[in-house]
Amino acid sequence: MSDRLALTAKELDASDELAGTRARFVLDDVVYLDGNSLGALPAAVPDRVEDVVRRQWGELRIRSWDESGWWTAPERIGDRIAPLVGAAAGQIVVGDSTSVNVFKALVGAVRLVDGAGDARVARDEILVDATTFPTDGYIAESAARLTGRTLIPVTPGEVPAALSERTAAVLLNHADYRTGRLHDLPSLTAAVHAAGAVAVWDLCHSAGALPVGLDEHGVDLAVGCTYKYLNGGPGSPAYLYVRRDLQDRFDSPLPGWNSHAEPFAMRETYEPARGAPRGRVGTPDILSMLALEAALDVWDGVSIEAVRAKSLALTDFFLECVAAYVPEGRVESLTPVRHEERGSQVALRCENAGDVMRRLIERGVVGDFRRPDVLRFGFTPLYVGFADVERAVRILGEELR
Amino acid sequence: MSDRLALTAKELDASDELAGTRARFVLDDVVYLDGNSLGALPAAVPDRVEDVVRRQWGELRIRSWDESGWWTAPERIGDRIAPLVGAAAGQIVVGDSTSVNVFKALVGAVRLVDGAGDARVARDEILVDATTFPTDGYIAESAARLTGRTLIPVTPGEVPAALSERTAAVLLNHADYRTGRLHDLPSLTAAVHAAGAVAVWDLCHSAGALPVGLDEHGVDLAVGCTYKYLNGGPGSPAYLYVRRDLQDRFDSPLPGWNSHAEPFAMRETYEPARGAPRGRVGTPDILSMLALEAALDVWDGVSIEAVRAKSLALTDFFLECVAAYVPEGRVESLTPVRHEERGSQVALRCENAGDVMRRLIERGVVGDFRRPDVLRFGFTPLYVGFADVERAVRILGEELR
Repeated sequence: MSDRLALTAKELDASDELAGTRARFVLDDVVYLDGNSLGALPAAVPDRVEDVVRRQWGELRIRSWDESGWWTAPERIGDRIAPLVGAAAGQIVVGDSTSVNVFKALVGAVRLVDGAGDARVARDEILVDATTFPTDGYIAESAARLTGRTLIPVTPGEVPAALSERTAAVLLNHADYRTGRLHDLPSLTAAVHAAGAVAVWDLCHSAGALPVGLDEHGVDLAVGCTYKYLNGGPGSPAYLYVRRDLQDRFDSPLPGWNSHAEPFAMRETYEPARGAPRGRVGTPDILSMLALEAALDVWDGVSIEAVRAKSLALTDFFLECVAAYVPEGRVESLTPVRHEERGSQVALRCENAGDVMRRLIERGVVGDFRRPDVLRFGFTPLYVGFADVERAVRILGEELR
Repeated sequence: MSDRLALTAKELDASDELAGTRARFVLDDVVYLDGNSLGALPAAVPDRVEDVVRRQWGELRIRSWDESGWWTAPERIGDRIAPLVGAAAGQIVVGDSTSVNVFKALVGAVRLVDGAGDARVARDEILVDATTFPTDGYIAESAARLTGRTLIPVTPGEVPAALSERTAAVLLNHADYRTGRLHDLPSLTAAVHAAGAVAVWDLCHSAGALPVGLDEHGVDLAVGCTYKYLNGGPGSPAYLYVRRDLQDRFDSPLPGWNSHAEPFAMRETYEPARGAPRGRVGTPDILSMLALEAALDVWDGVSIEAVRAKSLALTDFFLECVAAYVPEGRVESLTPVRHEERGSQVALRCENAGDVMRRLIERGVVGDFRRPDVLRFGFTPLYVGFADVERAVRILGEELR
């Protein structure tokens, strides 16, 4: 059986149209299934960063704000991310952490409904995905407190029933960071809109792994990080999407000087910039930002649809290998079987998961452990192959036998 | 006269105890008087950044969060900055932009007085330095709006008279970004405290150029950038100081998961960390942050008092050269003559300042132009010498003759 799956892996790799993109990364013989936490290093990054440090900063110094395009990097790089999440240019700006962008987006969302529509209805509630990565919940609580709203934690499945004329905004995670479950962005967005509320999506665990279709599905605001499937590097800056027709009404709670219509006029009075730059705050962290820009070169000529097809094939094959290699009853998959409900990771519940993951890492298979009992494996189609998957699960099976 | 000043410069350089630190930077024959905007590249940075990218990210990948000390970088680097601003360890955390930190500090300041002291007095006002760098005013307006306070713009000189039992917090800039005027931090802080309010200082234009004495003068909260006199690189992360005895009551408006008491427990309920980490928000931008850490090596064995003494000698000498080289009436200094009121820059009002600065830059003297009519020259004592000053003003004089 092991031979059969090894052979299948070989065939799948041979017909993989994305097999060539692995060479765009710096990789060794480790099976790296933790790209959903920190993406591997794209090969173009080190030289680019060296140029930014030695020449742009070291030689041109202050002139680089213009001459090296530092000042316009947040929008320029936003436009590089845009096609990966189904957004037309001019709607995404890069900068700050995901948490800070969640704050901008959620306070901005509440302000979009303030005074809009029927003034007799007080939209005093914010719904937040209770299964979400915790920072979204903590920041949503702060946004609710500062805007005088009540925060209501729900599961994504409970959202349609929880929506009402009291709902101001809804913050949802596209893919669950723990189970890998993919939520139905089109139908949930439509439900939020039908209730007259604003939909804010967190794309941290989906952007770069599958099509998001922000424009197509009419998402209002979205945020995401860039260090997972976008391989931007540790703590690389996050991004904010504000749909074009909402930009003029987007009212940021962090109106730093970079978001001013004329930042260098240094005016006492704030006047927000038009378009995506309105989501900027302070001076962008250029080293991290330009590393991300170089990292995005790996997407040249790659379609996100092809990435999605391979991602599903990888997770399907992973689950097939688990069924074959892992003794019955030792693990339980928390990841949905249906493709429409699956992100680009597999979470296995497992006894002594922490120890098991430690041993896997010692044997060159890197995933991660999420308390209390979850083995988490992420699949980045640009650099993970089917033989990697077979090898990873074969070793997992040996450890659990 | 030109010979006399050139000779004086030579003598001053010969007796300069900080002359040796220039070798800790990558510099060419340009006279770089724009370190108050973007500090020059410290020589240790490029190799360190390369190691972070190629080895820590490229080889260790996710393991670097522990093994390379990524996770603890915000506090560790905060403790490196602490002695430069007169703070004991454990009170400064690095991360986010200055604007974001102003927001944390000011909302946090207002919340410190909420419910404190005499409950019959509503502290409903925030005072902000109206001459400040604009972002502070914009962010203060947002903080006031979100906390239901009224923002009152004043000049620092007007602060004592404007303080009352209605004052919740006061945001002041230690050194004015335009004129270089240094405000009296000890006495203004004491006045704010006497009124029962909270003092928040922005140190962007003073940290690394002169002693600040945060602990000594009982400052409550402070923020600052690291890319000016701290040479951290373009957009390197800012920092937040919360005085130790206030930390347990500091209530951040941006409670991201990095500020949780147990961030990796991924709990639904927020419980703030104790100490400086409470000021963290999201995942730190590691590339920019570790570049800053390497940049701080230039301070080894350097006392901030020696830096201040040289800074004053440099600006004194600059003004002496201006008096000698620049034709009468062509420029007017906006920078205070008294040492106690002077930061580490000189601002000269000058007709056609934009054109004049362009020509200076062409001739290898880099300062900057601030609209409408200001030539701004910053003096970083770690790499600017007296001969640089003489040469810069000689060229300025030639251009204005």
